[in-house]
Amino acid sequence: MASTNELYGELLSRWRKATLLASCSSQLSWDEQTYLPPGGAEHRAEQLGLLAGMVHELLTSPRLGELIGELQQRGDLGEPDDPRRANLREARRRYDRATKLPTRLVEEISRVTSLAQHNWVEARKNSHFETFRPWLERIVALKREEAAALGHGDGVPYDALLDDYEPGAKTADVARVFAGLRKDLVPLVQAIRNSSTRPNVSILSRRYPKDAQGTFARAAAAAIGFRFDEGRLDESAHPFCTGIGPGDCRLTTRYDERHFPGAFFGVLHEAGHGIYEQGLDRTAYGTPIGDAASLGVHESQSRMWENFVGRSRAFWTHFYPQAQSTFPEALDGVGKDDFYGAINDVRPSFIRVEADEVTYNLHIMIRFELEQRLIAGDLPPADVPAVWNAAYAEVLGITPPNDAQGCLQDIHWSGGLLGYFPTYALGNMYAAQLFEAARRSLGDLDALFAKGEFTPLRGWLNANVHRFGRQFVPSRLIERITGAPLSHRPLVAQLKAKFEPIYRL
Amino acid sequence: MASTNELYGELLSRWRKATLLASCSSQLSWDEQTYLPPGGAEHRAEQLGLLAGMVHELLTSPRLGELIGELQQRGDLGEPDDPRRANLREARRRYDRATKLPTRLVEEISRVTSLAQHNWVEARKNSHFETFRPWLERIVALKREEAAALGHGDGVPYDALLDDYEPGAKTADVARVFAGLRKDLVPLVQAIRNSSTRPNVSILSRRYPKDAQGTFARAAAAAIGFRFDEGRLDESAHPFCTGIGPGDCRLTTRYDERHFPGAFFGVLHEAGHGIYEQGLDRTAYGTPIGDAASLGVHESQSRMWENFVGRSRAFWTHFYPQAQSTFPEALDGVGKDDFYGAINDVRPSFIRVEADEVTYNLHIMIRFELEQRLIAGDLPPADVPAVWNAAYAEVLGITPPNDAQGCLQDIHWSGGLLGYFPTYALGNMYAAQLFEAARRSLGDLDALFAKGEFTPLRGWLNANVHRFGRQFVPSRLIERITGAPLSHRPLVAQLKAKFEPIYRL
Repeated sequence: MASTNELYGELLSRWRKATLLASCSSQLSWDEQTYLPPGGAEHRAEQLGLLAGMVHELLTSPRLGELIGELQQRGDLGEPDDPRRANLREARRRYDRATKLPTRLVEEISRVTSLAQHNWVEARKNSHFETFRPWLERIVALKREEAAALGHGDGVPYDALLDDYEPGAKTADVARVFAGLRKDLVPLVQAIRNSSTRPNVSILSRRYPKDAQGTFARAAAAAIGFRFDEGRLDESAHPFCTGIGPGDCRLTTRYDERHFPGAFFGVLHEAGHGIYEQGLDRTAYGTPIGDAASLGVHESQSRMWENFVGRSRAFWTHFYPQAQSTFPEALDGVGKDDFYGAINDVRPSFIRVEADEVTYNLHIMIRFELEQRLIAGDLPPADVPAVWNAAYAEVLGITPPNDAQGCLQDIHWSGGLLGYFPTYALGNMYAAQLFEAARRSLGDLDALFAKGEFTPLRGWLNANVHRFGRQFVPSRLIERITGAPLSHRPLVAQLKAKFEPIYRL
Repeated sequence: MASTNELYGELLSRWRKATLLASCSSQLSWDEQTYLPPGGAEHRAEQLGLLAGMVHELLTSPRLGELIGELQQRGDLGEPDDPRRANLREARRRYDRATKLPTRLVEEISRVTSLAQHNWVEARKNSHFETFRPWLERIVALKREEAAALGHGDGVPYDALLDDYEPGAKTADVARVFAGLRKDLVPLVQAIRNSSTRPNVSILSRRYPKDAQGTFARAAAAAIGFRFDEGRLDESAHPFCTGIGPGDCRLTTRYDERHFPGAFFGVLHEAGHGIYEQGLDRTAYGTPIGDAASLGVHESQSRMWENFVGRSRAFWTHFYPQAQSTFPEALDGVGKDDFYGAINDVRPSFIRVEADEVTYNLHIMIRFELEQRLIAGDLPPADVPAVWNAAYAEVLGITPPNDAQGCLQDIHWSGGLLGYFPTYALGNMYAAQLFEAARRSLGDLDALFAKGEFTPLRGWLNANVHRFGRQFVPSRLIERITGAPLSHRPLVAQLKAKFEPIYRL
């Protein structure tokens, strides 16, 4: 009979092969977004389809199921926190997700979402919800079917979807922290709205030449710790970060010469993701826990570097002189405080991806509540526009003028990504709680940033977050590092400490 | 029992899967040469190794062998020229090549050539043949073993290697046309050497700004018919063209601001390859004959566009005014004839890749003769430098000052590519014979080029060469199109017609 070590070794070797093959897809997808000539789109879809099928085959092979089952039965892979046990836990989770869904359902979701995305593009362009409604109906029905097939212990189907993006997260827990956050944020947004202080945002729409933006953003990304010898920065229509494999992590951005923050904070954001990818334990590559912990934890890293670092006063104490010499035409005679105010403009707005650091979370809560009701079957998709607009009026005090600026703005639902949105706000809360812990451990972070010293924070994140990959589920990871379960308080405290002075509240 | 159609369908479907998977490697290899960050090299090697292994597995599967055997036995796939029969012929050829070599030998060749290339780089850098000699000895021994494993009907082991690059080509036939070519070229080169006419090549070393070179080369590539909506042009250390799949063909070049011809004719050359790839029959993609016919036929396309079109007087009748306005600093006051003379400078030189259109073929013949003797076991690798230098003295009238400029200049042998060199000169002869046939069919090509009309030639090549892929072996393809077997005469005639006036012979 094979030893536990042999079985475990075979499990890992099968997983490594699947991961390596999947990493070929990552590279092809990166290329699709950056350099693929238009005529190659069809062939690229064929390539990606083939690889996806082959990876799926490897990850659903009966032999893999046997290995996982046998190892679980033996239960002799060390203590609870042994990485080998974590690998087995993650392997089980992924294997179950991959095998519980009938092939027919997987293919149907793939087919419908592919068509739905085209219809969504049309619907958004014409701000015509009716074009998208039948597709949303089909997608919601399919996702309900998916949740049922996956199963959900506590009778909450949304849990099954959420778990795909945030392993172990429960809808009820998320709802509780979101409720606390909302209770504190709504009055803060209201107070800012009523403030007579208004930053002069027009300075950000002056001319910022594209090449200079690229040079400056690249220097900032390198300064916070993104390693360009193991990564790249290119252009794409939709910015993203992809970790292709050890030593190869790629960021993209897009430049608008008349809007400085877009590319700059976009690059810091993607570099935050990239620093996480570059900080993963190389020796764990290709094992089930060799990956980032979750979408939420990933987002905590991007948001931390983008907002808590990049939009801090201390950061610009260091970088503003460089900014002024890089963009003399735009910034000559503009004081650092005016610039700092402009990049921290807070006001309710319709579009999530353009929202500021404070209101952003409210956009997420609205979607989270709608999604739960859609999946529970309590909200007919046809009612989404009305419910959406009412929620924006209630929570943000503004009513979208049309569905393009309302419920049609995001691509997620058309792609079948229900359960994804909450990870963005979870990321903000993780970020604040981790940042607070980092401060306790490292002392005055602002003093470091003001001197251009970002290595202590990056090193702390490497040591406490990055190197563990998926060894712990996000809730455990956060509690382990910060000594407390996830709470909305650190984020609220941080936002108040920052914005009350800016808006003289 | 399965019908012939069913078996044939299964054969094609297996071949398509292998081709599609191999095309993922093409994309990863392109990226490796263009955009891969240095830190990603190791992971990229892992990815390419995995894909190569999986493709090999698909193309050597016993079921594939059964299908090929059964279909050949039935012999009911139509008339001799039926594309289905050609597919079966190509499948057999590839399957045999893939299965006849013992895994041990394949792995040993892969291992030794990988190490040999590093040693060759060192050896060339220090111009020290002794560093490379033991590697060359091992590689020659392994390639002799490979030839023996593959088998060769007429007792000529070199045939087995040649066939890998030029299906169906025989050493004796190649030697015969090469002998004819050499007999006519040597006196032509001698006459040019003795001519008192000397082009002023210094005008090509003036300053040609990189961006302007890129724009100009791109415009020329598009003008001759390379479609940029289905392709790209990027930079890499070593220029190449790769057809990733239908609708996606990529060229690379490198720019030297002090050497105009490098990038410009390099781009025309690679665009020639690209136009062939873009002209393949899309519906045959993924079938055994869906590929280009051979390396030699591929080279005929690149050489034709680079030399017969791009270095013709008529081409510059059209393009020289654009060149002058694109590079005013370099070309103001330079007459078209002086420019034309400079880009057609002919003189014996040491380095193959820098050789002109006339002497280039002599470089190839020297290598072809050495390779035959190495593989036959008649020439100890230790004697290569002496034999090389003697051949250069005899054929080109110059003696390399050192081995870096002699027998260490090319990467091919270190990579195990013995049998590859002859395809370059075959390509030149194919090109001339095809060009002559095109002229018979289309009339005065120069008159068309002078008006910037390249579509007739490209269309003729599409219709006569490109769309057939591998349906015919190269020798048949050429004879079918031109009505005669391959001969050195068209190339000689064309070179004389061009260079006798330039050098007033």
